[in-house]
Amino acid sequence: MTYCVAIKVNEGLVFAADTRTSAGVDDVRTYNKLHVFEFAGERVFTVLSAGNLATTQAVLAHLKRDLDDPAAAVSLRNVRHMFDAAEYVGAVSVKAQRDTAAHMQLGNTVDLRTTLILGGQIQGEEPALYLIYPEGNCISSSPETPYLQIGESKYGKPILDRVIRPSLPLEDAARCALVSLDSTMKSNISVGPPIDLAMLPRDALRITHTLRLDLDTPLLAQLREAWGQALMSAFRSLPRFDWEMSDAQGSLLRDEVDD
Amino acid sequence: MTYCVAIKVNEGLVFAADTRTSAGVDDVRTYNKLHVFEFAGERVFTVLSAGNLATTQAVLAHLKRDLDDPAAAVSLRNVRHMFDAAEYVGAVSVKAQRDTAAHMQLGNTVDLRTTLILGGQIQGEEPALYLIYPEGNCISSSPETPYLQIGESKYGKPILDRVIRPSLPLEDAARCALVSLDSTMKSNISVGPPIDLAMLPRDALRITHTLRLDLDTPLLAQLREAWGQALMSAFRSLPRFDWEMSDAQGSLLRDEVDD
Repeated sequence: MTYCVAIKVNEGLVFAADTRTSAGVDDVRTYNKLHVFEFAGERVFTVLSAGNLATTQAVLAHLKRDLDDPAAAVSLRNVRHMFDAAEYVGAVSVKAQRDTAAHMQLGNTVDLRTTLILGGQIQGEEPALYLIYPEGNCISSSPETPYLQIGESKYGKPILDRVIRPSLPLEDAARCALVSLDSTMKSNISVGPPIDLAMLPRDALRITHTLRLDLDTPLLAQLREAWGQALMSAFRSLPRFDWEMSDAQGSLLRDEVDD
Repeated sequence: MTYCVAIKVNEGLVFAADTRTSAGVDDVRTYNKLHVFEFAGERVFTVLSAGNLATTQAVLAHLKRDLDDPAAAVSLRNVRHMFDAAEYVGAVSVKAQRDTAAHMQLGNTVDLRTTLILGGQIQGEEPALYLIYPEGNCISSSPETPYLQIGESKYGKPILDRVIRPSLPLEDAARCALVSLDSTMKSNISVGPPIDLAMLPRDALRITHTLRLDLDTPLLAQLREAWGQALMSAFRSLPRFDWEMSDAQGSLLRDEVDD
């Protein structure tokens, strides 16, 4: 599996992805799932992918081929709006799946689908995030739903639901994405390090930071330890049951002062 | 959906469950998913259920009928070991599914399966927890895996993975179960209040506490607020990125002292 998350706050966009792929438990590899197409000062796109790796690679190859072809009718270089980019990438994805399916034997049950997140900004437009379904259609993020997830998304959702607001600073959104990835890696071995992170501040029209964080990269190691300790101390601060009154006078007195 | 969790620590067992059932989004109801069979001083069993509600109710009715029948060859009153109880409940579940399936029309795709957690203690034995699959077979908890979940289990798993250890006091295990339920309810509307909680201390051979907690029950309201605030302050305490150095001298200095 895979876990990718993209967050849109007022200050810009954050993208994060794990790098573990598996075609069975004895065929686990590391692949980049965060792909940047940057035309600095003009337009920037980031694609996150979850699903069939061959389909994903076919989509990326197609996007690059169109970029290199001056005669291409549509490409990431010439789409007018972010929504047009999402529709274009969706059409490329559907074509990649169809092309492979046409060569598949009857009864073959390989799942060719890939789900993508496309985010970025075109000069003169708002930054935007889209989740592109395997069917090629898409949904955008919104102020009420300022993040999009693909892949193994449930473990890392509660922290996003609690923390992410459009007013959150971009670096806090990035930290929250890392915590969301870390929680997922702790609970599901199909999602694994290193973690890729990219930050696209509003109107910068270039990716200002890309990080690849392994478990022993100081930032991620510190963040994991700090989060684990802070969570345990948060847990210890929770209110007591009635019947614990007599056993825990000290902490209860503190609770009463806080009330 | 449903979310139930049972935790085994050295001090005993904790059971928690939501109460929301749905047969479609326009047919949402509240049902008890935590069922206690207590023979105080001798043996106590708790059953948690996730899946087809009719199958679950058929299983519970069968268990009660066997208890009321002095001639029953096997019942929760006379099983010798906790594992025997789990096998018996599994067999009852398989029978309930088969009985209904026998009356179903060909091509009917209703999912009759139910997944159960059985926990408890029989005098002279260790407390034990079993997850009973729809197929009737079961797995037990272990010191390395001291909790079992059924239903919508992913959202609430990270906090269990971080906090639950066999050495944890029973009340802390109960608090962790409540946090796990609360996180799930925040991220998934198919899991909903009130929450049922039951505690079975080791060798008590009776349930010492059962609580039904709604969102406005003071304990749950306080716990939700305290956890939300503590999480946010945990989040704010996380280490900064390198490039934030100049912007956040104060907090970085504090980080350096902590190192």
